[in-house]
Amino acid sequence: MENRYSRRVQYYETDKMGIVHHSNYIRIFEEARVDYLHKIGLDFAMVEGFGFLSPVLSVNCEYLHSLRFGDEFYTETRFVDFGVVKYRLCYKVYQAGTDILCARGESVHCFTDLNGKVVSVKRENKELYERFVKAANGK
Amino acid sequence: MENRYSRRVQYYETDKMGIVHHSNYIRIFEEARVDYLHKIGLDFAMVEGFGFLSPVLSVNCEYLHSLRFGDEFYTETRFVDFGVVKYRLCYKVYQAGTDILCARGESVHCFTDLNGKVVSVKRENKELYERFVKAANGK
Amino acid sequence: MENRYSRRVQYYETDKMGIVHHSNYIRIFEEARVDYLHKIGLDFAMVEGFGFLSPVLSVNCEYLHSLRFGDEFYTETRFVDFGVVKYRLCYKVYQAGTDILCARGESVHCFTDLNGKVVSVKRENKELYERFVKAANGK
Amino acid sequence: MENRYSRRVQYYETDKMGIVHHSNYIRIFEEARVDYLHKIGLDFAMVEGFGFLSPVLSVNCEYLHSLRFGDEFYTETRFVDFGVVKYRLCYKVYQAGTDILCARGESVHCFTDLNGKVVSVKRENKELYERFVKAANGK
Repeated sequence: MENRYSRRVQYYETDKMGIVHHSNYIRIFEEARVDYLHKIGLDFAMVEGFGFLSPVLSVNCEYLHSLRFGDEFYTETRFVDFGVVKYRLCYKVYQAGTDILCARGESVHCFTDLNGKVVSVKRENKELYERFVKAANGK
Repeated sequence: MENRYSRRVQYYETDKMGIVHHSNYIRIFEEARVDYLHKIGLDFAMVEGFGFLSPVLSVNCEYLHSLRFGDEFYTETRFVDFGVVKYRLCYKVYQAGTDILCARGESVHCFTDLNGKVVSVKRENKELYERFVKAANGK
Repeated sequence: MENRYSRRVQYYETDKMGIVHHSNYIRIFEEARVDYLHKIGLDFAMVEGFGFLSPVLSVNCEYLHSLRFGDEFYTETRFVDFGVVKYRLCYKVYQAGTDILCARGESVHCFTDLNGKVVSVKRENKELYERFVKAANGK
Repeated sequence: MENRYSRRVQYYETDKMGIVHHSNYIRIFEEARVDYLHKIGLDFAMVEGFGFLSPVLSVNCEYLHSLRFGDEFYTETRFVDFGVVKYRLCYKVYQAGTDILCARGESVHCFTDLNGKVVSVKRENKELYERFVKAANGK
């Protein structure tokens, strides 16, 4: 199961090379993740309402083709895995129209309590855990 | 009394015109303000420690000359006024070396409690108020 | 004639107060402007195709109500005036659902050639000038 | 040979968790790289002057400890390798005072001509190539 999210490149996202600055793809990944979790009913507000945060442990991105101002792009996001302690999402960013793959990458996340202490959602909230596992398995 | 703050333009601050994106001057104003308040012993952490936040009520900026990647710039910051309910700072951004004025603007701020309710610092914390008034009067 | 543009607040647009950082409203104004000019057939690419850039001369913003992560907002954008040398747009940002006015402001722009020299579009390109005037008059 | 670069966290770099947004570490890596190349006499302007750009091919970052507003941090940057076609830099970001490692990562770059076509600097500009190799070998 993949989620698709799309929008146009903003002017302020470009740099002096005339292309989207590479740091902004990390932000696009976040937008794609937020959109995905929102659509499957697991959005940030809900997860926070249960007393959890889900910070980023690591991120990587490979840049293949530059997006430019005015370009429309779409992202495809899916879970790579969802474990007891952490989970991993992967992202692909395509230029709309041409379907050229512009960037791809991953982010790894854990769950913490509201004080930032790492917790096992499986142990702390079985129901929430199972909803994530189901989403990660594409069900 | 004016405060001087300087640094170089970062690559990620430029846009496809090859110049610093206009929104980033608003961020530079904030940097200049933070630096100023820090130097006069009225930094954000201290003000928050007293139970106050100081959000931005309005901001304006006039763009006169473009800064580019690698340019060094300096800002001059001073209080325009410090009233019972709000205060105003003004900023000038100069290109180092040439001393060309690149941008100038103002920001207006109030004080709120930690829940965002506007408060009179004069009434709530006479000592803090007087330290600000002194700074604003350049003493 | 007003143009409406809407989207959700992104996580990376918030600051440690939990609200959209004030500098991001200047970026939202730009998004709104780009969207407006695109819809009336006067987008940046077209204007650049004619050999003109349209940099920002000044900007101001008043902050009335804070937007937060996940909030949906919409902007209303319109021309205030369109003169021989410069033009002015105004923006209002509303929280969707409540229709609370969150921010309002203006930006002033001129036209330059591709080297950054200020030009009169009226003199240089009568047709383009008249299309802008028509848009500014809401026709 | 490692290069050290330091500054304070800006307010606008924080997010609603109260910490530096993870995308900003990618920007900090860039600042560190720019500073490093500047110090060894291989700055962007010089490289562009020779007719080359050096875009980012990939980036990764591991987040270990959160930086907060007002924190001072320093980065350590060094070349991992410098090959015929691409080169790799690694970065470590430490909280000043405590020397806690907050983030570490890498970026991979190539050289292109001003039109974005990948080129071999070794073949195109032996002198520039050798200066990079020397820097990468810490000489």
